[in-house]
Amino acid sequence: MKPMSELRTIEWVGNKVRMIDQTRLPYHLALVTFSNYRQVARAIKEMVVRGAPAIGVAAAMGLALAADASRTKKRDRFMRELSTAAEALKQSRPTAWNLFWAIDRVMQVAETAGEPNEIADRIIAEAKRMAEYDVETNRRIGEFGSALLKDGDQVLTHCNAGTLATVSYGTALAPIRTAMNQGKMVRVIATETRPRLQGAKLTSYELLRDRIPVTLIVDGAAGYVIKTGKVSAVIVGADRVTRKFVANKVGTYMIALAAQANHVPFYVAAPSSTFDLRTGHEDVEIEERSAQEVTHIEGKRIAPKGINVFNPAFDLTPVELVTSFITEKGVVGPEMVMAGSLQPGT
Amino acid sequence: MKPMSELRTIEWVGNKVRMIDQTRLPYHLALVTFSNYRQVARAIKEMVVRGAPAIGVAAAMGLALAADASRTKKRDRFMRELSTAAEALKQSRPTAWNLFWAIDRVMQVAETAGEPNEIADRIIAEAKRMAEYDVETNRRIGEFGSALLKDGDQVLTHCNAGTLATVSYGTALAPIRTAMNQGKMVRVIATETRPRLQGAKLTSYELLRDRIPVTLIVDGAAGYVIKTGKVSAVIVGADRVTRKFVANKVGTYMIALAAQANHVPFYVAAPSSTFDLRTGHEDVEIEERSAQEVTHIEGKRIAPKGINVFNPAFDLTPVELVTSFITEKGVVGPEMVMAGSLQPGT
Repeated sequence: MKPMSELRTIEWVGNKVRMIDQTRLPYHLALVTFSNYRQVARAIKEMVVRGAPAIGVAAAMGLALAADASRTKKRDRFMRELSTAAEALKQSRPTAWNLFWAIDRVMQVAETAGEPNEIADRIIAEAKRMAEYDVETNRRIGEFGSALLKDGDQVLTHCNAGTLATVSYGTALAPIRTAMNQGKMVRVIATETRPRLQGAKLTSYELLRDRIPVTLIVDGAAGYVIKTGKVSAVIVGADRVTRKFVANKVGTYMIALAAQANHVPFYVAAPSSTFDLRTGHEDVEIEERSAQEVTHIEGKRIAPKGINVFNPAFDLTPVELVTSFITEKGVVGPEMVMAGSLQPGT
Repeated sequence: MKPMSELRTIEWVGNKVRMIDQTRLPYHLALVTFSNYRQVARAIKEMVVRGAPAIGVAAAMGLALAADASRTKKRDRFMRELSTAAEALKQSRPTAWNLFWAIDRVMQVAETAGEPNEIADRIIAEAKRMAEYDVETNRRIGEFGSALLKDGDQVLTHCNAGTLATVSYGTALAPIRTAMNQGKMVRVIATETRPRLQGAKLTSYELLRDRIPVTLIVDGAAGYVIKTGKVSAVIVGADRVTRKFVANKVGTYMIALAAQANHVPFYVAAPSSTFDLRTGHEDVEIEERSAQEVTHIEGKRIAPKGINVFNPAFDLTPVELVTSFITEKGVVGPEMVMAGSLQPGT
């Protein structure tokens, strides 16, 4: 069985987009191939692909499919087609900043001069480059982050910010992979992460596959394991970082509070493309997902019929609760984020 | 459909113990009847009956079954039989203090003079009296607690500390029931409470049945709903209160931290029989339950095979994080608990 680092969560293959279908893990490692942007938008919405960096690359590749599919020679019409695709992709999920960042980036490429078919080629090349750059970025996050870990550490992580949340290697799991490669033994505590169970299904799967020791807990147990001294550090990913908040999987905020109360470092590992540090953009739209994610597990109803549900997919952790941000540019403190001095990478 | 207040979670009927089988809720409201203490001990362990006050009464009734079943006329032998039953019941679950309190109380009744059959009658009478007293206690908790709630409040609760955790009426849900009876509109946010889903299955069921508005969230969303101003107060029950800690369903500690960080009152509603305030008894044994509670939901595997699991059933919330304790004797601040000045009731 290949290690996770040899898998690609999302890949451009023969002018189509191939993804691991994450809704079928850990039971089946199945690939799905999409040939138009609408399928990609649906795959993002339904969490066939998820994780902010992976969603960003998926959106870029969705636009590449739209550009490739265009049969027009007229630039105006080509741009209108592309804009329609961009809008559809932007509406797939509202919180992950990488989605908007990636779409804007591809649209900038589209603004360059040339015939539609030349532009389409450049868009495809850009989407492929973004995928490769994501892997490099995560390896740098791994390098910077592993310096914060020592032999024997036990790291708590929430949700999945591993290979499956990125093109490969992960964000929150990158420092752990790199530390292990450097000969440090690092164990992981993974929260199961209701409602979608990304910790139970994806993080557990990845780490078992890579033979990194992992212990699964329910989300509510995070405070207890932190309080009883079992956790050397918390590392989570992020869906969006603003000057005030880290938007990440719902449950992150209480873990950050527990880390602070028990003097355990709380790290957020994310590429600079997750950061939107413009003033006036501090607030984040928190996606609310269907009641059925809460009332049903694996198709089986677990709550009484007629129950009212509130299902926010993310929560907001104040930047002050973050010990450091681990990015591909280095390890930076919360004050730099509050000051807006971290700029997106190239 | 009868309101919850007309149901009895556990009842002494025809010299047998009849319980609602809570493992079958919310799908079926089924009664089970037990005729010996071993069945009762197993029912506690397997959570057919759960909730500290209900477990206490179950243990007392288990001893009553043992006393009633004894055929000996010899007092020594009778006491040995009773002690064997007491030991088996004490080993059913280690955390809920009411279990030990109830067993000690019944054993004190057994110490009174008389023939075994007279003692057995007194034990049965005592177990029945404890059940009735539990309901009175909870109604008093409801009276004291409802004074802390006002019309329009939204209360967050964790796990189930309602009718189903007691003989009837509940501890954490008692103030809400009383407030509603007084004409105040109080809405509830219930956490689903992994791994056993008591919030999704039991609290939701109770409140829907009693037409008290309830919204179900995943455990990780508690911090978000508190931070966004949706919660007027948190009320939880307790399995044991010592001078230092409140042992309650795992996840309680992080909710208490979120309440504190956002200046939301955090109340613990519990009868005085839940309090063990002896010095030297500050620490609490936290029960660890099976990995399968985490890896499987409704019989369906949700995590990869071979995964390591840590499954503590409870966590410890420092007493300082509690705004007030709501007991049948009144509303008391954490300093009284730290000083050990709350004594068990009669």
